[in-house]
Amino acid sequence: MSHGFNPGFSEFRRSHHCVIVSIVGSAKPNLAGSPATMLKAPEHQVAGHQARDGQLGPLVDGSGMFYKPLQSDDRGATELAFYTSFSSDPQIPAQIRSFFPGFHGTQLLHASDGSGLHPHLVLDDLLAGFRLPSVIDVKIGSRTWLPSSSDDYFRKCVAKDIETTSALLGFRISGLQINDDRGFWRPGRDAVRRFNSNDVRRALRRFVSSDPAASDDCEPDCAFAPAVYGGSSGVLSQLLELKSWFEVQTLFHFCSASVLVAYEKDGSKNGDGDGGSGGARVRLVDFAHVAEGDGVIDHNFLGGLCSLIKFISDILQGFCGESSDAKCYLNGDGKIY
Amino acid sequence: MSHGFNPGFSEFRRSHHCVIVSIVGSAKPNLAGSPATMLKAPEHQVAGHQARDGQLGPLVDGSGMFYKPLQSDDRGATELAFYTSFSSDPQIPAQIRSFFPGFHGTQLLHASDGSGLHPHLVLDDLLAGFRLPSVIDVKIGSRTWLPSSSDDYFRKCVAKDIETTSALLGFRISGLQINDDRGFWRPGRDAVRRFNSNDVRRALRRFVSSDPAASDDCEPDCAFAPAVYGGSSGVLSQLLELKSWFEVQTLFHFCSASVLVAYEKDGSKNGDGDGGSGGARVRLVDFAHVAEGDGVIDHNFLGGLCSLIKFISDILQGFCGESSDAKCYLNGDGKIY
Repeated sequence: MSHGFNPGFSEFRRSHHCVIVSIVGSAKPNLAGSPATMLKAPEHQVAGHQARDGQLGPLVDGSGMFYKPLQSDDRGATELAFYTSFSSDPQIPAQIRSFFPGFHGTQLLHASDGSGLHPHLVLDDLLAGFRLPSVIDVKIGSRTWLPSSSDDYFRKCVAKDIETTSALLGFRISGLQINDDRGFWRPGRDAVRRFNSNDVRRALRRFVSSDPAASDDCEPDCAFAPAVYGGSSGVLSQLLELKSWFEVQTLFHFCSASVLVAYEKDGSKNGDGDGGSGGARVRLVDFAHVAEGDGVIDHNFLGGLCSLIKFISDILQGFCGESSDAKCYLNGDGKIY
Repeated sequence: MSHGFNPGFSEFRRSHHCVIVSIVGSAKPNLAGSPATMLKAPEHQVAGHQARDGQLGPLVDGSGMFYKPLQSDDRGATELAFYTSFSSDPQIPAQIRSFFPGFHGTQLLHASDGSGLHPHLVLDDLLAGFRLPSVIDVKIGSRTWLPSSSDDYFRKCVAKDIETTSALLGFRISGLQINDDRGFWRPGRDAVRRFNSNDVRRALRRFVSSDPAASDDCEPDCAFAPAVYGGSSGVLSQLLELKSWFEVQTLFHFCSASVLVAYEKDGSKNGDGDGGSGGARVRLVDFAHVAEGDGVIDHNFLGGLCSLIKFISDILQGFCGESSDAKCYLNGDGKIY
């Protein structure tokens, strides 16, 4: 049976690193690495490898580009193959494409760990235009391994899926920061990894509350829930649009990918082009473990996405129930969900 | 946080077998086991333990009741607790309740393995009224273990989930028979367990085709797809109704439960009360591993259900594309899906 898949993807996957090098070799000249363009570690990165303290990590140019070092094993080849296939696939609807970072090829750049020239994916910087964004990275899926994964990788992943909330909730928070002019909350990586169900629910409430620096004893007020999660272009509405696509798309299985949500509390004032709802942006990131869908929907991602949707919907519903003016918290046609 | 769960469920789970015995002791007198009522092994059971050859298995009375022996370990206690909780929970919508077997308490009956009196769940016989039903049992979910499962149970389940199609497709076929006056197809348990993706797709096509005894070389004609899978009360429509509930229900996680689909090829003639579409029945069965949802949707079941829906939808779509009269294959408002 034909799965209608862009044939480039599996070809890339099979030929691994040598393909990366040849693609890099044919890319446009390395301008971003020249002294005229200052690259630096992204200021608001909340998960993944970071380009600090001599580590290899992504860089930004401050002009809207994000440079992600290609991992040297299968993961780099897989992520490059995914972006190459996805960006040229006519089967992807335009409104779905907008959930993914724009892809601008690869470039050899001086790696942030000082190891010399290294191939980087050139992507849109998803946080460009934000001054003090609140950002959350949610890894979707109750499992982060594929049926075809090696035994070692399977064991490593399944242990983490059970330790964290992935197996139980269908997703886990990989990192977050909550920012505004009055305060800041950014739990450490180990603290986030230890989040249980209640911590996750609380973090998703706190993410849209008015005092990020409030102590753990305070109940989050969810003051920004209507503007950020609700409304016709808010987070819930965007997640529901993604869900509709995942119910039918059989091209890719997005194993271990994340939903990134970002907004700025004064976003409605600075006109960042994303429209209302505080300019909340929902994007998909991290495609180092994407596999061919081969005619089957990504039930693992879809299930986890629906679980996240229910969490967000519950926050809006709870907020709505306590309010005397329910309309502003509702989604589109007057239904929350 | 209150999860709104019927408190009977967890209480039952905790007190295990002693509760079963006390419930049984207080049940109505054992009439079904008396010589006046002949119990026998169900003729059309396609999966699970069978009451044949000295084995412990379910029995039917031919008058609409199905007697399922309670398993002696946690599984029996869990299934009884589920039925008790579910049958009295006012939060279950009436149209969802109709997807589950009616529950009529427990009875001590002579076990089919000759071991003496054994407690049985008394349930509706889901195949009552059918003469020559075609039946398929589809175990839903990419995983059949819970995050709280023991290591041994986890290892056993995960191996089977990867060996079969569960991990890949989000469901696996546990058994099927295809029946009509012209022929019969019932693959053995081992053959079904070895089904790959293509075998599953083919079995779902063959299930609604006109010649069940046709060889594997023949392409299934899907002649009954419009009547069985399509239409406003067909299988697809019923699965979509279940999906809507699973998107919001957070009471139960239906680990290792199955969707049972049954229909009869002359069903439209014998007026079995299920309405059109050949009287196709969709039911949920097997609740020995149900867990409390605790405020979280059953993303594992929902993802697998959506994958099955896509398979069924693809069959209808393919059939529709080849037909000159597409309308009859469409679902409700003119959309297949």
